[in-house]
Amino acid sequence: MSVLQNSVSVTVSRSSCNSKGSMIVVSNRLPFILKRNEKTGELERKASAGGLVTAVAPVMIRGSGIWVGWPGIHLDNPNEKIPESDPDDKTPTAGLLSSKIVAIHSEPKLFDSYYNGCCNGTFWPLFHSMPDRATFIVDHWKAYVKINEEFAMKTIHALKLLKEKKEKNGNAPPIVWVHDYHLMLAANWIRERAEEDEIKCKLAFFLHIPFPPWDIFRLLPWSDEVLQGILGCDMVGFHITDYCLNFIDCCQRNLGCRVDRKNLLVELGGRTICVRPLPIGVPFDRFVTMAQNAKPVLNMSQQVILGVDRLDYTKGLVHRLKAFERLLEKYPEHIEKVVLLQISVPSRTDVKEYQDLKEEMDQLVGRINGRFTTPNWSPIRYIYGCIGQEQLASFYRDAAVALVTPLRDGMNLVAKEFVACQINKPPGVLIVSPFAGAGEMMHEALICNPYELDSCAEVIHRALIMPEDERTVRMNHLRRREQLNDVDSWMKAFLKAMDSLEEEEDDIGATSMQPVTIDDFDEYLSKYIGYTQKLALLLDYDGTLAPIAPHPDLATLPLETKNTLQRLSNMSDVYIAIISGRNVNNVKEMVGIEGITYAGNHGLEILHPDGSKFVHPMPMELQDNVVDLLKALQEQVCRDGAWVENKGALLTFHFRETPVAKRAALADLARKLITDAGFEAAPAHCAIEARPPVEWNKGRASIYILRTAFGLDWSERIRIIYAGDDVTDEDAMLALKGMAATFRIASSTITKTSAERRLSSTDSVLAMLKWVERHFSRRKPRANSLTYKGARMARDTLQMQMSYHLPTRSPRQTPPRTPEVISSGSESS
Amino acid sequence: MSVLQNSVSVTVSRSSCNSKGSMIVVSNRLPFILKRNEKTGELERKASAGGLVTAVAPVMIRGSGIWVGWPGIHLDNPNEKIPESDPDDKTPTAGLLSSKIVAIHSEPKLFDSYYNGCCNGTFWPLFHSMPDRATFIVDHWKAYVKINEEFAMKTIHALKLLKEKKEKNGNAPPIVWVHDYHLMLAANWIRERAEEDEIKCKLAFFLHIPFPPWDIFRLLPWSDEVLQGILGCDMVGFHITDYCLNFIDCCQRNLGCRVDRKNLLVELGGRTICVRPLPIGVPFDRFVTMAQNAKPVLNMSQQVILGVDRLDYTKGLVHRLKAFERLLEKYPEHIEKVVLLQISVPSRTDVKEYQDLKEEMDQLVGRINGRFTTPNWSPIRYIYGCIGQEQLASFYRDAAVALVTPLRDGMNLVAKEFVACQINKPPGVLIVSPFAGAGEMMHEALICNPYELDSCAEVIHRALIMPEDERTVRMNHLRRREQLNDVDSWMKAFLKAMDSLEEEEDDIGATSMQPVTIDDFDEYLSKYIGYTQKLALLLDYDGTLAPIAPHPDLATLPLETKNTLQRLSNMSDVYIAIISGRNVNNVKEMVGIEGITYAGNHGLEILHPDGSKFVHPMPMELQDNVVDLLKALQEQVCRDGAWVENKGALLTFHFRETPVAKRAALADLARKLITDAGFEAAPAHCAIEARPPVEWNKGRASIYILRTAFGLDWSERIRIIYAGDDVTDEDAMLALKGMAATFRIASSTITKTSAERRLSSTDSVLAMLKWVERHFSRRKPRANSLTYKGARMARDTLQMQMSYHLPTRSPRQTPPRTPEVISSGSESS
Repeated sequence: MSVLQNSVSVTVSRSSCNSKGSMIVVSNRLPFILKRNEKTGELERKASAGGLVTAVAPVMIRGSGIWVGWPGIHLDNPNEKIPESDPDDKTPTAGLLSSKIVAIHSEPKLFDSYYNGCCNGTFWPLFHSMPDRATFIVDHWKAYVKINEEFAMKTIHALKLLKEKKEKNGNAPPIVWVHDYHLMLAANWIRERAEEDEIKCKLAFFLHIPFPPWDIFRLLPWSDEVLQGILGCDMVGFHITDYCLNFIDCCQRNLGCRVDRKNLLVELGGRTICVRPLPIGVPFDRFVTMAQNAKPVLNMSQQVILGVDRLDYTKGLVHRLKAFERLLEKYPEHIEKVVLLQISVPSRTDVKEYQDLKEEMDQLVGRINGRFTTPNWSPIRYIYGCIGQEQLASFYRDAAVALVTPLRDGMNLVAKEFVACQINKPPGVLIVSPFAGAGEMMHEALICNPYELDSCAEVIHRALIMPEDERTVRMNHLRRREQLNDVDSWMKAFLKAMDSLEEEEDDIGATSMQPVTIDDFDEYLSKYIGYTQKLALLLDYDGTLAPIAPHPDLATLPLETKNTLQRLSNMSDVYIAIISGRNVNNVKEMVGIEGITYAGNHGLEILHPDGSKFVHPMPMELQDNVVDLLKALQEQVCRDGAWVENKGALLTFHFRETPVAKRAALADLARKLITDAGFEAAPAHCAIEARPPVEWNKGRASIYILRTAFGLDWSERIRIIYAGDDVTDEDAMLALKGMAATFRIASSTITKTSAERRLSSTDSVLAMLKWVERHFSRRKPRANSLTYKGARMARDTLQMQMSYHLPTRSPRQTPPRTPEVISSGSESS
Repeated sequence: MSVLQNSVSVTVSRSSCNSKGSMIVVSNRLPFILKRNEKTGELERKASAGGLVTAVAPVMIRGSGIWVGWPGIHLDNPNEKIPESDPDDKTPTAGLLSSKIVAIHSEPKLFDSYYNGCCNGTFWPLFHSMPDRATFIVDHWKAYVKINEEFAMKTIHALKLLKEKKEKNGNAPPIVWVHDYHLMLAANWIRERAEEDEIKCKLAFFLHIPFPPWDIFRLLPWSDEVLQGILGCDMVGFHITDYCLNFIDCCQRNLGCRVDRKNLLVELGGRTICVRPLPIGVPFDRFVTMAQNAKPVLNMSQQVILGVDRLDYTKGLVHRLKAFERLLEKYPEHIEKVVLLQISVPSRTDVKEYQDLKEEMDQLVGRINGRFTTPNWSPIRYIYGCIGQEQLASFYRDAAVALVTPLRDGMNLVAKEFVACQINKPPGVLIVSPFAGAGEMMHEALICNPYELDSCAEVIHRALIMPEDERTVRMNHLRRREQLNDVDSWMKAFLKAMDSLEEEEDDIGATSMQPVTIDDFDEYLSKYIGYTQKLALLLDYDGTLAPIAPHPDLATLPLETKNTLQRLSNMSDVYIAIISGRNVNNVKEMVGIEGITYAGNHGLEILHPDGSKFVHPMPMELQDNVVDLLKALQEQVCRDGAWVENKGALLTFHFRETPVAKRAALADLARKLITDAGFEAAPAHCAIEARPPVEWNKGRASIYILRTAFGLDWSERIRIIYAGDDVTDEDAMLALKGMAATFRIASSTITKTSAERRLSSTDSVLAMLKWVERHFSRRKPRANSLTYKGARMARDTLQMQMSYHLPTRSPRQTPPRTPEVISSGSESS
């Protein structure tokens, strides 16, 4: 009985696969289960009860790939050898050598928290849009993170195995295909570690269940992490376009990503991720053959309505029985003529919710049968258990009606298997719920909302009496589509989607996003900034204005950015402050523009345009310590390319030129020295900063700067843009949240941010600055009562524009100073 | 204690209202409650505990309007007089004379099914995106329909009262403002009856709770009815744009309406409905005054975290207590320094779900207090009950933090009232859930996902230690926005939106949809029809191709439609059949195009292009009855302008020229005569048809026509468009569902349809036909290997195109005939 466990039960004919590289499949379960023989004590493989088993195995085997997954048993000795398959094994996984298996081992309790807790307690109900059934328990989530990391590490191991063997297909990078809601976080670790180890691979993800709309998904406390985990892949597949669009919507609204709904693309950390609808199919021809050979089982003197489901609350079984009861009430002519054959496959029987459902079903079947049974007929035949494939094919073939009415379902393959087996003439009728993926695709089925008992009864009645010509037409359509879109073509579509990623650079639009342009900022910023207020631009330097370089001295400001900033600094309505982790004099030197504000050491020092300076005081008791700490760092950790930068109010220990392998030990020691000296050790780009333990950060500094420049009521008078790439910028984004337009520049994908939008590079920041320039040079003509057309002309003659601004006296030369001193720091220059 | 019952507690200053007409407010509750004085037995008004009471009352009273609603008591004698308000009454409803009240009376059980069953058992949880809590019970729904109809009839009564009195404002049509999820169906009945009685009015709806995304909303078995009910209004308001977009999405996807997301418009039945975000506000200045005058209550030596909510599962109270517990765990420095003051207002105390919640809260408060309490301090002060406005203002003013963390909430006014009362310096901090409407608008509040206990604890901690400057900036922003957008400005915005409807005709785009154009069909049809297959166009005649006329003979085909059909009939890839309720010869004469198929009498007679004819046989036993029935109808019901049309296979009794008042009686009698004669009485446009009781309809006929024209495998070879306006067309839409593009032409709004799309008029059908013409004239050049540009040029030179087609022999002249005869009907002409 392989059709019902989770969602997939498929096979792929040998001819269909044209992947160039090997494939590593990563799924919660291996394609078989290990069991210990009670007599011999030996491990044995058991053909797996479902999952992806027979779908992907042939492709993987032929390409000399590897399968990473849990073997279904917790072994005391994780090194115990996995047995080879039985010589008599004829399943698609028979050819899967144990050398091609990487098994996951985990502490049983942790695995339970991951699997029953997070996967099935949180994601299953939430993704099926049943938020009330979902639990959000942080320990379950932590287990999920841990197990996902374990899967990622095993996948790296698999990648290394492939690399070592230098397979004949080794030229093309292998495809790593991560499956389903169990493993939504694995991709980023795989990507990072593969990059570190210089292993090339293409990463794909496929979700076998629905992806919910944003209003539901965003309830998840860890929604950002999940989205970013999935976006760690290069290609993300869902069953239907609706799920793709839900996902893209979430990426835009939760993460602030740029997206392209037309081409189904998401941008994150400078990468473009392709989102694709890949509706899964069934091995159509195999089901036809089974149907041709299966012995008749059903008594054909009655019309049989067939239901086949895992016993799960998403399947709508209670509603289905009630709808059938309604049918018998409304149309008593079906009494003794029609039977509902419901097969319920036991599932998650150790979970209370599922036990309750079983009880409810038992009771309901009893009640309805009790109500309608006659001496020679009972309306419902209820089988609680598994049945064999052959018998199932026989049921599918001979049923008059199939009732596939889940409350929510990713795709539902029962509908497709039924259709494949419908070889009798005249054929039967398929009834499907609009809330299953299958309901979106199988247009010619009768559609019935499972919540709507009365009209469900009507639809079943209609199916039972449907004229033969209509039945034939509908079934022909359905069969043709499923034959065409069988599991082979699903696999082909997947491989084709992966191949198309390679053509990325030639084919901007289909698989990669248009580069960021000025216009990208229009919707977000023009609404916020408007046409009357001044703008304060607060900008980090390294990684925001200037690309990160191997050494701080090399991180120079690109000329175009400098020129743009220079022009902005001459605009009367634009105020600029550069807020950096660098020493304030250093950052001023690097930027080299007069008349703007500079803040150094994350705001501990602020240099105003009029030359006055604010320095946050170093606590008295630490003033000596700085000297000692500097000495200690220089003596003990400045080796292997590491060095200390003395920034005055803080010290930075840099190790970006230290070999990767040696970094951790050095960093640990440096951290210890820093904290021992009474300073805070704060992480930075390949560096650790020793900061005095004062309640001061870029957030406090930003508010101080704005107050100083615009007075106490600054927030009523200006609009603010903040852009930064560093964790220290998060303090500012948090402090300004809701009061500023905030951008986080993030090239890496694992970043939780308080910023509203993400930008992928310093180039995008430049585009944003140019948007500001355009916006404010358009504003001037407005004030001068020029028409909009005039304003557009003005944009094209920027040079001319600038002369408008030159005579205006910049308010920045005499910023209004607040009389109140926020700290006792020296404000003299 | 008026701030917490449902969502609104507002007042409007006398100056703010500029409505031109009177206003009829329709809401579940009247603006006061009637209670019977136990001693005197007299009815007395009690100031209502909330609802819309003080918001809209002043506007309504000043405009001499009327309030329609339930008085909060079931009266034995519905004519018992409503008492006037107490002379000492100083509430905004004091001026509301009982003559301005129209009270709803209902049978208590029915009202309970409506209110507790459907409103609060179905809509409340569903609209709050908690589908698992929603029950879908058809009897509750029926009660909802009935009570909504009752409200509608009372509203018509109110409109008549206004009309009779010819108020001085009587020139401008009154505004009927229907409120909230209790009354989503009332509008269409009001509209229809008002039109019948020639009473002018403008209809508006406002939803005070969230509107869910389509994935949730579509679960509702009666989703179409609810959408159409709301769309009965001219203007539909929601709190925030998100809800507006959810609603528009549902209208497009559930009803197949044309929509305009940019201008927030929906088209239904030829009308344009404006959808508007109207975020409600609070009487800001009143709260400021209360805060200024309220005596201090709270012990200010501790920081008070304040929660104020109705005890409802949507409010996230359990999560909130747990987050507070987490705070004390993680930051024990707050022990003895911080108190959570939670006020829970009893609500729906007779519902088990709410009783369970109360128990859970009681227990949780006990447990957390038990865990942390010290001799002189308990962490939670839990008040289960109502508190006065003044005391509340005092709490709002003196609390350090307000926790407004619902799991889902339409707007949440507690957040706004808190902000209004924050007159202390330094101010406190507002924490709000992103799942409340307020969370979308109050940007400067701290945002916290109530499901995320750990980070909730962090956010509360951050609020408790937030530096004064940040607190001040945030609160200043928040207060300024709420002062600006108070309830006055909400009311103004509503009235302005209503006023803007009048400018409809001058201002297409803002409040009315662009007319249907050819391009409107591009997305839906080009994907379906593609570039290779033939097309079968199945079209109804009356109301689809030809506008409905007072008499069938006058319903002629507009010349442009005729010419378009004529050109289409000459295209080799287009097959046309007209399927009408008329006699087949008559419909052929009305259309007047050769070489296409005509079906008359709903398909009982079919005339093929080659002249051959199919006639469904009249059951032998009825052949005499037809003659008798015709005679009986002519003698007994052909008066007052009614007449019988003899169509051969059926008879049609027309009464469209009969005065409205006399129709019902005549129609009843006609129906009786028809059924007595053994025929089926089927409704049609102002007519009743006597059909032979055969299993044949436009659906069966459509399939027969397609089979006859294209052979048994027709469905694999062609694409189908079906368009019709009649209930009899629904048979065809149902039979072809999933296999055809289907259009229902519907000028009235209350129409449940199986069609995928709606069109508002015969003009739209013409546009669709022109789309087909353009599409197929583009196809030809493709086949001839012209470029796309060539194809576009071709479109503009249609005349030239046509000559391409002329030489092609139309396949319609020799349609492939099926050897199988579907019925024993004569096929000779």
